[in-house]
Amino acid sequence: MVAKSMEELVSLCKRRGFIFQSSDIYGGVKGLYDFGPMGVELKNNLKQSWWKSMIYERDDIEGIDASILSSPQIFKQSGHEETFTDPLVDCRSCKSRWRSDQLINDTCPNCKSKDLTEPRPFNLMFKTAIGPVDDGSSFAYLRPETCQQIFINFKNILDSTSKSVPFGIAQIGKAFRNEITPRNFIFRVREFEQMELEFFVKPSEDLEWHKYWIEKRFNWWIEQGIKKEQLRQHNVDKKELSHYSKETVDIMYNFPHGEEELEGIANRTDFDLGSHTKNQKEFSINSNVLENSNSTTKLGVKNLDDKKPYIPYVIEPSAGVERGVLALLNEAFREEKIDNDNSRIVLSFKPHLSPIKAAVIPLKKNNENIVNMSKAIKNKLQKMALGRVMLENSGNIGKNYRRHDEIGTPICITVDFESLESNSVTIRDRDTMEQKRVNVEELEDYYKNYFFN
Amino acid sequence: MVAKSMEELVSLCKRRGFIFQSSDIYGGVKGLYDFGPMGVELKNNLKQSWWKSMIYERDDIEGIDASILSSPQIFKQSGHEETFTDPLVDCRSCKSRWRSDQLINDTCPNCKSKDLTEPRPFNLMFKTAIGPVDDGSSFAYLRPETCQQIFINFKNILDSTSKSVPFGIAQIGKAFRNEITPRNFIFRVREFEQMELEFFVKPSEDLEWHKYWIEKRFNWWIEQGIKKEQLRQHNVDKKELSHYSKETVDIMYNFPHGEEELEGIANRTDFDLGSHTKNQKEFSINSNVLENSNSTTKLGVKNLDDKKPYIPYVIEPSAGVERGVLALLNEAFREEKIDNDNSRIVLSFKPHLSPIKAAVIPLKKNNENIVNMSKAIKNKLQKMALGRVMLENSGNIGKNYRRHDEIGTPICITVDFESLESNSVTIRDRDTMEQKRVNVEELEDYYKNYFFN
Repeated sequence: MVAKSMEELVSLCKRRGFIFQSSDIYGGVKGLYDFGPMGVELKNNLKQSWWKSMIYERDDIEGIDASILSSPQIFKQSGHEETFTDPLVDCRSCKSRWRSDQLINDTCPNCKSKDLTEPRPFNLMFKTAIGPVDDGSSFAYLRPETCQQIFINFKNILDSTSKSVPFGIAQIGKAFRNEITPRNFIFRVREFEQMELEFFVKPSEDLEWHKYWIEKRFNWWIEQGIKKEQLRQHNVDKKELSHYSKETVDIMYNFPHGEEELEGIANRTDFDLGSHTKNQKEFSINSNVLENSNSTTKLGVKNLDDKKPYIPYVIEPSAGVERGVLALLNEAFREEKIDNDNSRIVLSFKPHLSPIKAAVIPLKKNNENIVNMSKAIKNKLQKMALGRVMLENSGNIGKNYRRHDEIGTPICITVDFESLESNSVTIRDRDTMEQKRVNVEELEDYYKNYFFN
Repeated sequence: MVAKSMEELVSLCKRRGFIFQSSDIYGGVKGLYDFGPMGVELKNNLKQSWWKSMIYERDDIEGIDASILSSPQIFKQSGHEETFTDPLVDCRSCKSRWRSDQLINDTCPNCKSKDLTEPRPFNLMFKTAIGPVDDGSSFAYLRPETCQQIFINFKNILDSTSKSVPFGIAQIGKAFRNEITPRNFIFRVREFEQMELEFFVKPSEDLEWHKYWIEKRFNWWIEQGIKKEQLRQHNVDKKELSHYSKETVDIMYNFPHGEEELEGIANRTDFDLGSHTKNQKEFSINSNVLENSNSTTKLGVKNLDDKKPYIPYVIEPSAGVERGVLALLNEAFREEKIDNDNSRIVLSFKPHLSPIKAAVIPLKKNNENIVNMSKAIKNKLQKMALGRVMLENSGNIGKNYRRHDEIGTPICITVDFESLESNSVTIRDRDTMEQKRVNVEELEDYYKNYFFN
């Protein structure tokens, strides 16, 4: 089961501290969101799960974390200055501005006038003046994607590690796009995070690696708890491909507002390293790249067989963190009847993604022994370093269960008077709502099983 | 022992993949840096250590992760539009621009002219146009500090959690300042990360909580491996206090370029919530705040004794991530003689901060059994979720040790022919360089001891 509507998710997210509109006490800013106490844990857990699968569990990928502000040279050579645009029209009558591909009947959606300008390209990159002089001579872009910094650091990574092709460089970080009409909650926003891998391969091996990563990434999302039936692989039509791509497969997910892209896996060929390399003519670059007279560094490698230098191809699995969070929230959402009069909302996250791993609840808040025993249990489980464990020291037990169902806490552990005598606690499972008595000595194993089974 | 000079650190950082100049293949951009494969792990480990100490190991702090782009209203009310400036002068002769407090003898450092303008305030905030119309009507600031988003989310956090005063909200994230003269490697940069806690207390309890947090933060840095003799608490002179602060204590560290601030712990009084609250007149605000007619939300709480509403005071420990990384690198740096002819550089990080926790080295790269056993050991240790474990499958053993000394890997585990027969491996300790034979069955416990002792 999933959420009935986006509104249902938005409401839960605000009520339980997952996501708030940014700057909301000043009326909010469109397309910007803040992650609250539960949202930040969910988002970090998703990012860590990706990082683990990309870097820790493999031996052929390195990570980086590059700056957001970037030299304009990068986005000149990458083609973004020229092509990263939306077509805009102005209404001459009411002076409003619109994306031309979203107009109905060539009519201004605001005042219904048909007196519109021809479409003009509007660049989606944010720019800002840098340095003391603000006369346009010195500015930086807020990167619109994280991958460019990977390409320009290609040589730095080769020189400082022991990697050779095939290998990858991965990055998680913010990117910014001045979307004209941000929409669908955190799906299309102006500030977001990407999880991008650029995997460098021999030109002749691009097709098989592309296939490998499509498969790999599709299965990874299923491991995060997305049902297979909710996902679909979509071959992007040749006419709709980005300028750098030879072939792209999108992993589509049934979001509350419709089926849209969750992650794209592109075969970027030798376009990127070829665009940014020094001495382009030394290499036989297949892509149509801009001439580059500014780069100081060769971004090719040597073929170990024939000793000739070449520009590696790039396979890029690129996922949006916010889109991932939205898909996880939707996928985990269930509303279910408990009995004739009562229902509950529960977020059935996989435990490694749950914001809170376990809540420890002292049944009597004013009984010092019960509270101390609760704290000791919390500290013991926290030390196992599996994520955030919470001492839930407010409200009644019913409210606590309700709250932890709605934020997706796998288990609630209640400490009561009997606990003091028998050294046992009551454990309630989020999904089955079953309760059972467990001895404190067995608690660590019991808890661990939620994560390693 | 520490580094002899900043240059020594810069060189190691580039050589071993900790830190690179940003956009360096295009000549670089001043004040921007990229973190490489080792740098990103070190930085993430430092941030996680902070997050753990602030949120996971306590019961009175919640985390958030808010947007970087921010409504201008926030920085109008906070006083940043008015006061967050450096004094600049222009040289009328060569048209260069300088910070007036850095001029020597009122002479242009470039052309030595004395024909300079009077100093004018230059705002350090980056701004960018947002939305489709670029006529200055709609813009956002890149936040110059992370704390403001905590203040404006105060009510959101109260409503979505069960917290009450005293409690804190913590955030780690990027901040941006258009520094005129970025300098001293990653110490003073234009894009950086902050780790900020805003701890909300009753107005009468501010002094004791301030003291508490100074102590707490000072000791935390020692736990991260900074020697106590390298740190000093500095009471910021009343005349030099920021406009919001009643009292600030800086934790100073002996950086390679001199003693400077590593973290500041400020008593911000009721300035922040008082600045951003709706209906300011309902509260008796002690600070001198700008009138606020735009906020939609009251940021006060009720005193549980007399039921009267009041604005909490704020104690703020604010640390810079890059400064922390620089201090850790410097503090961990040792160059030592091995024998008459050889010396080594080693980074003696605390194991929880080391980029690589253990390196597993197959002594014969082309022996399948040795390589497979190495991979199995790597996977086993990796599963313990204590950080990145690396399969080191290149170079000779001497080079590998040298490399892992220089990136601070606590142990190297070598798999050789004897390993296949006796199921044992050689472990080399980074700090003592001692090697001993350990049975594979004991390896997990041996490894764990590095982190939990």
